[in-house]
Amino acid sequence: MRIFIAGVDGYLGWSLAQYLAARGHEVAGADIFFRRQWVEEVESWSAIPIGSIEERLQAFRERFGSKLHFWQGDLRDYAFVERIFHEFEPEAIVHLGECPSAPYSMIDVSHAVFVQTNNVTTTFNLLFAMRDICPQAHLVKLGTMGEYGTPNVNIPEGFFEIEYQGRQDRLPFPRQAGSWYHWSKVHGSNNIMFACKIWQLRATDIMQGVVFGTRIDEMGDDARLLTRLDFDQAFGTVINRFCCQAVIDHPLTVYGQGSQKRGFLTLKDSMHCLTLALENPPAVGEYRVFNQFAEVHNITELALMVQKVANHLGSKVEVRCLENPRHELSEHYYNPAHQHLFDLGYCPSHDVEAEISIMLQDLWQYRDRIQAKKDILIPEFHWDGRREKVKFFD
Amino acid sequence: MRIFIAGVDGYLGWSLAQYLAARGHEVAGADIFFRRQWVEEVESWSAIPIGSIEERLQAFRERFGSKLHFWQGDLRDYAFVERIFHEFEPEAIVHLGECPSAPYSMIDVSHAVFVQTNNVTTTFNLLFAMRDICPQAHLVKLGTMGEYGTPNVNIPEGFFEIEYQGRQDRLPFPRQAGSWYHWSKVHGSNNIMFACKIWQLRATDIMQGVVFGTRIDEMGDDARLLTRLDFDQAFGTVINRFCCQAVIDHPLTVYGQGSQKRGFLTLKDSMHCLTLALENPPAVGEYRVFNQFAEVHNITELALMVQKVANHLGSKVEVRCLENPRHELSEHYYNPAHQHLFDLGYCPSHDVEAEISIMLQDLWQYRDRIQAKKDILIPEFHWDGRREKVKFFD
Repeated sequence: MRIFIAGVDGYLGWSLAQYLAARGHEVAGADIFFRRQWVEEVESWSAIPIGSIEERLQAFRERFGSKLHFWQGDLRDYAFVERIFHEFEPEAIVHLGECPSAPYSMIDVSHAVFVQTNNVTTTFNLLFAMRDICPQAHLVKLGTMGEYGTPNVNIPEGFFEIEYQGRQDRLPFPRQAGSWYHWSKVHGSNNIMFACKIWQLRATDIMQGVVFGTRIDEMGDDARLLTRLDFDQAFGTVINRFCCQAVIDHPLTVYGQGSQKRGFLTLKDSMHCLTLALENPPAVGEYRVFNQFAEVHNITELALMVQKVANHLGSKVEVRCLENPRHELSEHYYNPAHQHLFDLGYCPSHDVEAEISIMLQDLWQYRDRIQAKKDILIPEFHWDGRREKVKFFD
Repeated sequence: MRIFIAGVDGYLGWSLAQYLAARGHEVAGADIFFRRQWVEEVESWSAIPIGSIEERLQAFRERFGSKLHFWQGDLRDYAFVERIFHEFEPEAIVHLGECPSAPYSMIDVSHAVFVQTNNVTTTFNLLFAMRDICPQAHLVKLGTMGEYGTPNVNIPEGFFEIEYQGRQDRLPFPRQAGSWYHWSKVHGSNNIMFACKIWQLRATDIMQGVVFGTRIDEMGDDARLLTRLDFDQAFGTVINRFCCQAVIDHPLTVYGQGSQKRGFLTLKDSMHCLTLALENPPAVGEYRVFNQFAEVHNITELALMVQKVANHLGSKVEVRCLENPRHELSEHYYNPAHQHLFDLGYCPSHDVEAEISIMLQDLWQYRDRIQAKKDILIPEFHWDGRREKVKFFD
C-alpha cells in the first residue's frame, strides 16, 4: 500500500515508516522539523541523538532496500500538500503532523493559538487534498485518549447509544479535554467526522493512550534508525520521562498524588495498532474511532514500576510527588473501552516491566545528555498561566 | 456597566451598541470591517445602505448623547486586544467578532481554514486578555443553535445528565454541527468551557437561533443608525433573504423540501436576550449555555408566512423549492430547550407576521439595491465542493 506519513521525522512517524517498510508497504513522508525546533525552544533535546533527515533517509534505504519518499515543507501550506498527493497518490495517509504537547500549548496565548491553528489547518489541508485528489484514500488520524477527559461513566469508542428524556440516539461521546493541545485534537476529530459525512471520505481516528519505549525491532542495530526520545516537561511523556530520570538517579517526579489514571501502550504496540487500522480500512464514508491502549495505570504505579526495574539494574531512585502544574482530577473513575483493535487482532504486550528494562538499558549510554538538561525535568508551565518551577510536596 | 463589543460594525453588533447605550450602559467596540469585505467578496452588498464608521459614530453620539469608544483593528492581534482591555477596562465582553457564515466557510480550503482559525484565534485572544487584565469580567459569546445539529433526542442547554451503562454523569451535550463555520463555533464553545474551568472566568455561551429583522426601536428615524441587512447566499439568513426576495417579486427560494426545522427570533428579541445575559452574569468560574430563540419553524412555514404578508401588501410572490446546496437532514426531530432566558424574564415576541410586515415596508425603498444584485439570490456554494448555481426543483 502507498502510505503517506505527515510528520515522519517525529517519535511515532520515524518508527512507523520503518515498521511499514518492513511489512512491504511503500512509504512516503513530509516534515518541516518543527518538533526539533519546539524541543530546542523548551531548552532540551532528544535523549537519544538523532541525525539529519539526510542521514536518516540514507540509513532507511540501506536497511529496507527501498526509498522513503520525502518532502520537506509546511503542511499548513495547501499547495505543498496538493503537490505531494499528486506526486505520490497515497492510498492511506497517517496524520502525525501536529504539535503533540499539552504543556507547550499552555505556555501563553501565542502558543495556544499556534497549537490549535497549526493542528486544525494541517488536518483541513489533508482532508481537502483527499477530497480533491484521492477520495478513496484512508486517513488515519492520531488523536488522544485525552480528548475524553475523565468522565464518571464508561468511555466508549467515539460514539454511544443513549436514551435521554424518553428518546434514543447514537451520538458522539462528549469530549472534556484537559489542555489547549487536547482540545485541538477534539477540534480535529470533529472536523474529520464532518468531512467523512459530507464528502464520503473514510477515516480512522485513533484515541491513543500514552506511548512509551525507545525502539522497535525493525530499527535493528543501526543507531541512525533510532527514533527521538524526549524527556522535557513539554514533549516528554510520563514513562519516557521517568526512565530518563532513573538513569541519572534523579527522583521520579509524580505530578500531584499520582492517582490520575491513563491508558498506556508500548511504541511497538502503537506501531502494530496503527498498522492494523491501515491494513483494515473502514468503508467509504465511514468515520470510526479506535481507543488505542494496552492497559490502564495510575501514575504512581508506573513510577513504582520504573523504580523497581531500576533497582533491579542497580540504581536506587526515589519517587517524589510534585505540585501538579496541570488542572486535572486526582481521584476519578476511568474505564475506557478498547475493543475495536482487539477485534482486528491486537494482542497487547502486557509486560510493561520488560519494556522498561529495555528502555533503561538503551538510555544508560545517553545519561550525559540527560544530565546536561536535568533542569528541565522539573516543570514550570502551569495551567493557570504562571511560569515558575513547581515545588516538591515532601 | 462598561461593555465591550467585539465586531461592533456588524448586523448584531451595531444594533446591540444602541440597545445597550439606550439602557445607560457605557459601550465600546472594535471592528476591522471584515463583514463589509466578505459581502463584497461574494459580490453583494447590504440591502440597507450603511455609512462609514465615522458617520455611524457621529450619529450614535447625537442620538445617545454618549460616545461609542471605537478601536479599528484585528482581534487576531493579541496586542490590539490587550490595548483595548487596558484602556477600556470592560466589565463585560460580547464576542460578535467572528465570521458568521456557513456557506462562506464551505467555499474552499482557504475559506474553511480562514473561518476556523479566525474564529478560534479571536476567542483565544479575548480569553487570555480577560485572564490577564480583567478576570472578573463576563464574556457573552455568540454561538449558534447550529452547534447541536438535529439529534433525535431533546436538546438541552449545553449540558445533560445521563445514565450510561449503569453510571451517571453531567456531560456537555454532543455537538453535530453542519458546516465548517458551525464547527468553528463548537471549537470556541469548547475552548471557553475549558477557560472557565481552569482560570475561573465567567461566560455565557449563546446558542442563538436564526435572527431576522430590519430594525430595533432604539434606532429611531435616523437612517445612519440602521444596521446592515444581507440577502446574499453567504451572509443573508433565511427570513431576511425571503423578505428581500419578496420586495422584488423574486420567488422565495426554499432549499430542498423546506421541512428542516430551526429556532428563530427577531432582532429585537436577540438584543433583549443578550442584555438579559449581560445584566444577570454567571458566578465566578461558571460557564453557562443559553439556547436563544423564540419559536421553532420549518423553512416552508416561514416562506409561506412571508408570502402571506407580501400578498397582503399587494405583492404576488411565489414560493419555489431549490436543490439544497447544504448537507442536512430534511425530515428530523427537533425539540431544543430554551428555559434559561425565560427564567431571567424573556417574553418572546410571537408575532412573526407583524415583524415581517415591518421588514417588507422597510425594505421596499431599497428594492433597487436588491434588484441590482439579484443574481446572488440563487446559491452556488455546495457543501460537496461544487460551485454552480443550484437548480429549481419544479
